[in-house]
Amino acid sequence: MKLFDGGRAPNPRRVRVFLAEKGIEVPLVPVDMGAMEHRGAAVSSRNPLQRLPVLELDDGTILTESVAICRYFEELHPEPALFGQGALGKAVVEMWQRRMELNFMTSVASAFRHIHPAMKEWEVPQIPEWGEANKPKAIEFLRFLDGELAAREFIAGDAYSIADITGLIAVDFMKPARIHVPEDCANVLRWYKAVSSRPSAAA
Amino acid sequence: MKLFDGGRAPNPRRVRVFLAEKGIEVPLVPVDMGAMEHRGAAVSSRNPLQRLPVLELDDGTILTESVAICRYFEELHPEPALFGQGALGKAVVEMWQRRMELNFMTSVASAFRHIHPAMKEWEVPQIPEWGEANKPKAIEFLRFLDGELAAREFIAGDAYSIADITGLIAVDFMKPARIHVPEDCANVLRWYKAVSSRPSAAA
Repeated sequence: MKLFDGGRAPNPRRVRVFLAEKGIEVPLVPVDMGAMEHRGAAVSSRNPLQRLPVLELDDGTILTESVAICRYFEELHPEPALFGQGALGKAVVEMWQRRMELNFMTSVASAFRHIHPAMKEWEVPQIPEWGEANKPKAIEFLRFLDGELAAREFIAGDAYSIADITGLIAVDFMKPARIHVPEDCANVLRWYKAVSSRPSAAA
Repeated sequence: MKLFDGGRAPNPRRVRVFLAEKGIEVPLVPVDMGAMEHRGAAVSSRNPLQRLPVLELDDGTILTESVAICRYFEELHPEPALFGQGALGKAVVEMWQRRMELNFMTSVASAFRHIHPAMKEWEVPQIPEWGEANKPKAIEFLRFLDGELAAREFIAGDAYSIADITGLIAVDFMKPARIHVPEDCANVLRWYKAVSSRPSAAA
């Protein structure tokens, strides 16, 4: 198999961090998203939506969507469990993975894509007003998360999960989006320090 | 257990259709979203994000996020499998569930929330330009989906799955969002006729 990878972009990194936590090595095919190579033939023929990452299995089967690729590896290599264990545990991780993605990462990404000059070709039409409207949404979510993290170590409970990976990626994405974690969100800052210190964060 | 339900809104309906496909009955607590009851104490104390549906288990455990609630029931009642079977099957359903949600339903919802006058209190600030920008995104995705559905019966393969439920809900949501399935998308129209004719669609 091979993984078409997109370097610094958030979703490709999400899969690399996940694989590092699992201790799985997959051959990477680098794709230069800065040079728009994800809109070239190699990616488009495999994923007409022209997004990365893309996993190609040995029989040619294509999997796209970072979380779907992660789930494939979770099923093949269940330990350590990064999608939770048991009916309730799996549902709680899914709930938090979605909250981190839909309420937080999406807001950060929208701020970046609709405001940053480098995104003009990517997000058409770029609507700066919509980008700005997303900044307070991201901050509001972090304040909610800060209260939640007062009572536990990781996003979805006492164990590290894919919800932490999405959170790590989203907080790192705040930098180019020019949004800052409020200084009084001590629990978020403690959690971020812990997850960004894990070896997987360098993936 | 009890399910705090939001009537016609897309995410509450997604869970009801899922439960109907599984043949599971859960006591519903109706919440009048038109009267903004989802921002009242009963919902806010259970889900500070003030979104529906919310599942409360007998021990008081709270689960939110429609897809997380569905996964909980999938784990407890695996048949019929609506999240796929086997590592690859589960990953393919996840890929399509995400594509249907992130590339299609989100576009329809953004058009509705940022344009419809009834959403003024819900979406602050309402940005009509962003709403309009989402209409062609929804149509573009439907054209991609139409090509995919030429080769198979359901969204994620030969079996009905949660990806079909998300798709059904999103197409129905196009009506208040004032977006129309292009008449030449014959495969999408054939698929929509099939999934909306199932008894679960009335849930």
